[in-house]
Amino acid sequence: MKLRLVFSTLGIIVIIIGLSMLLPLAWAIYYGSHDIYAFLISSTTALIVGFTLYKVFKTQDVFRYKEGFAVVSLAWIFATIFGSLPYLLSGTFDNFADAIFETMSGFTTTGATVISNIEILPHGILVWRSLTHWLGGMGIVVLFVALLSSIGTSGMQMFKAEAPGPVKEKLKPRISESAKMLWYIYVALTGANFLLLWIFGMSFFDAMCHAFSTVATGGFSNHNTSIGFYDSYAIHFISTLFMFLAGTNFTLYYLALHNNDYKIFWKSEEFRLYLTIILGAIIIIFGDLFIHNYGNPFKILDDASLQVVSIITTTGFVSADFDQWPGLSKSIIFTLLFIGGCAGSTSGGIKVWRILVLLKHTHLELKRAIHPRLISPLKIQEKIVPDEVLIKILQFFFIYMFIFIISTVIISSFGYELIDSMSSVIATLGNTGPGLNKFGPTQNFLHAPAAAKFLFSFLMLLGRLELYTVLVLFSPVFWKK
Amino acid sequence: MKLRLVFSTLGIIVIIIGLSMLLPLAWAIYYGSHDIYAFLISSTTALIVGFTLYKVFKTQDVFRYKEGFAVVSLAWIFATIFGSLPYLLSGTFDNFADAIFETMSGFTTTGATVISNIEILPHGILVWRSLTHWLGGMGIVVLFVALLSSIGTSGMQMFKAEAPGPVKEKLKPRISESAKMLWYIYVALTGANFLLLWIFGMSFFDAMCHAFSTVATGGFSNHNTSIGFYDSYAIHFISTLFMFLAGTNFTLYYLALHNNDYKIFWKSEEFRLYLTIILGAIIIIFGDLFIHNYGNPFKILDDASLQVVSIITTTGFVSADFDQWPGLSKSIIFTLLFIGGCAGSTSGGIKVWRILVLLKHTHLELKRAIHPRLISPLKIQEKIVPDEVLIKILQFFFIYMFIFIISTVIISSFGYELIDSMSSVIATLGNTGPGLNKFGPTQNFLHAPAAAKFLFSFLMLLGRLELYTVLVLFSPVFWKK
Repeated sequence: MKLRLVFSTLGIIVIIIGLSMLLPLAWAIYYGSHDIYAFLISSTTALIVGFTLYKVFKTQDVFRYKEGFAVVSLAWIFATIFGSLPYLLSGTFDNFADAIFETMSGFTTTGATVISNIEILPHGILVWRSLTHWLGGMGIVVLFVALLSSIGTSGMQMFKAEAPGPVKEKLKPRISESAKMLWYIYVALTGANFLLLWIFGMSFFDAMCHAFSTVATGGFSNHNTSIGFYDSYAIHFISTLFMFLAGTNFTLYYLALHNNDYKIFWKSEEFRLYLTIILGAIIIIFGDLFIHNYGNPFKILDDASLQVVSIITTTGFVSADFDQWPGLSKSIIFTLLFIGGCAGSTSGGIKVWRILVLLKHTHLELKRAIHPRLISPLKIQEKIVPDEVLIKILQFFFIYMFIFIISTVIISSFGYELIDSMSSVIATLGNTGPGLNKFGPTQNFLHAPAAAKFLFSFLMLLGRLELYTVLVLFSPVFWKK
Repeated sequence: MKLRLVFSTLGIIVIIIGLSMLLPLAWAIYYGSHDIYAFLISSTTALIVGFTLYKVFKTQDVFRYKEGFAVVSLAWIFATIFGSLPYLLSGTFDNFADAIFETMSGFTTTGATVISNIEILPHGILVWRSLTHWLGGMGIVVLFVALLSSIGTSGMQMFKAEAPGPVKEKLKPRISESAKMLWYIYVALTGANFLLLWIFGMSFFDAMCHAFSTVATGGFSNHNTSIGFYDSYAIHFISTLFMFLAGTNFTLYYLALHNNDYKIFWKSEEFRLYLTIILGAIIIIFGDLFIHNYGNPFKILDDASLQVVSIITTTGFVSADFDQWPGLSKSIIFTLLFIGGCAGSTSGGIKVWRILVLLKHTHLELKRAIHPRLISPLKIQEKIVPDEVLIKILQFFFIYMFIFIISTVIISSFGYELIDSMSSVIATLGNTGPGLNKFGPTQNFLHAPAAAKFLFSFLMLLGRLELYTVLVLFSPVFWKK
């Protein structure tokens, strides 16, 4: 392990965090809120530590496999530690566990909170909450790769270790170009979302914060009642639309724009399955709520579509208390918590692409059970999926469920009921935010003991980096020379 | 599809069911209970229909792949239909859904019941409930293969389609010899269990019924409070021991006896993992119950060990209301519901052998993530597990979870809460019996609507035949010429 290289790179990450704090600082100054000094000190600290790390450990070494893994996991941990400073210095939290939880929940776009009254927070902190989402959504490290074109092919390791979901093809020959493209699309979507929210009645400030949270599929809102605060079908629809767009594979946007071929969405089997699951879930929940008299048809269509899209994209915005919905709707919401959005999107979860491969292979295996000598490879969009990729995806599903089960057992040891433990674990591991019952949409994570908050924070990181990048650090093999 | 062959074989299965009804008939006569005529008519009907089917469709055809699948699934369905006659004729049930549920629960060794007051049942019915467990435990079709040595190699298909768990090696060159060996061991274990229960205070009648239920890892008891009816550590311990033995791979008994090598148990990685999970679960639950003051140490050790072994072996005997246990213990019980006993045992669930392969491969994948060029095959007991076997096991896990999720959604559409739906689905799919909350250890399945009872019955069959054998029948490919 080339530790010099690791630490100098982490220095740059910390500098990025320090610089990004200038935005909430500016808003704090504008509103004259009491968190000015918190951001001034946090930003200065991060910049000084970052520069020092970078200068002291500067090296000509290049990245290999191991450094890629180490940098990505540590980058997120460093970002979370420095990112928690404003919360601690502004007095939002008086303890480390809460501050780490809220910051990790921000960067990993989980959106679970330990704050009971959000509306009394100073403006700088509100911006910072949403901005952590936005930075984490496309990836702190992807941003770093995009900024430093000198990193060349060695950035691929880091890019793969962090980029959300299996990116099937390199968009551009140079990895830094790919990273830049993804960020351009990301910025454009955020801008469009901001403008629409502003036009349709949100304040400039709220529109900015909610756009950050939406396009990152984060879920932090400036209001205690989340997006439900806005009693406006237009705002709910815009939010639903942009959550949906942010849950789509970003590669498709690039290819559509670049080749001027908008049929590419329909050609993507993953996109079709994503759309099918969403429409299917909305129809069933709409019917269930309609039969059980949960309001007028427009209201329940709004509730059903916003909640389905919010949960499958792992955003976690809430407009209706789905914990009070009938059993069928609740079990569908619970199922969606596992699925997540498309690969190459900002969402978490298992991802639709993996589900697609798993379902198609299930079908193939049943065929093979009947015709044992059948030679028919697994294909997605006419391309053969090699056995080693298939094994990795099947294996991912097992590890995901295994971590889910073990963590559920641990959380239940803090005295929580099974439904609390299961839903809180999948809400954090899947980077969604709200769970059910004690961790339901109108509740928060404040009541969890500190040890549970650290476990939740760890699960968020595991989910965001798709397990392996973090898990390998626990393997003794990793640290052998 | 050679339908003549399928139907003539089913004829023999129905004859076996008809003959097996002579045992409850004998007990009904002995006790002069009111179900004499129910068994007389049921048995006669089964024998007449069976002989007719056999004679009418008799053929010289031999089994191929497809007939194997069809016969096994249909054999279980036919057995269940004819097996439900005594319940209907004796007036135990007044509807088909309940009768099918109870019979399927018997044959598949699930042990979930729709009878609220078991203690008022006539003696013949009590014997029949336990006997269905016993016939299904080792397998109706395995019994058939054992009885008909003429079936030769063509029985292998059926044997594989029904035999519980992946049988790693043929014990004997002739499949019918293997089937016979398994039945001898099965009968010996049952006899030993019966004798011990009888010696330590059970009545002859109860000892017989409970021995049938225990060694089949079924779970039907002659008492409303299950095995908890017996306030005797000795009887609890004997039951725990024999559930444990019945959850062990039967191949090991054969090899141990044949080669006089008792170290073979310890050499088996699966057996070691099985033992480790059981001991680990008992220790944690014991500690949890001790801390929360659930009784004196002997009582909670008895409760913890009996419930852990009862659930992991998918028997479902109940001595303590684990639904009232603290969160940690309950989440461990819930996890055990998925695991099941060893391959080649009478238990259900995913099976420890598959869990072993999944865990070992997880470890290997993490190593590979660090060293992408690492060539190190997956090995169990020094033998390489080929990729196609690995894919099948990983795939099995996904299909199992997929069926679990879809069925949970369907059951919740009947108005059940998530915890009810999830636990009832895994309790039936895993062939265990009791779930949690409304389907908890002191409850039963009577309150479920008829449609849900049919779905539960289907899940029991799916679980007992390990998914594929049943699922392929739903594939259009299967029915193509």
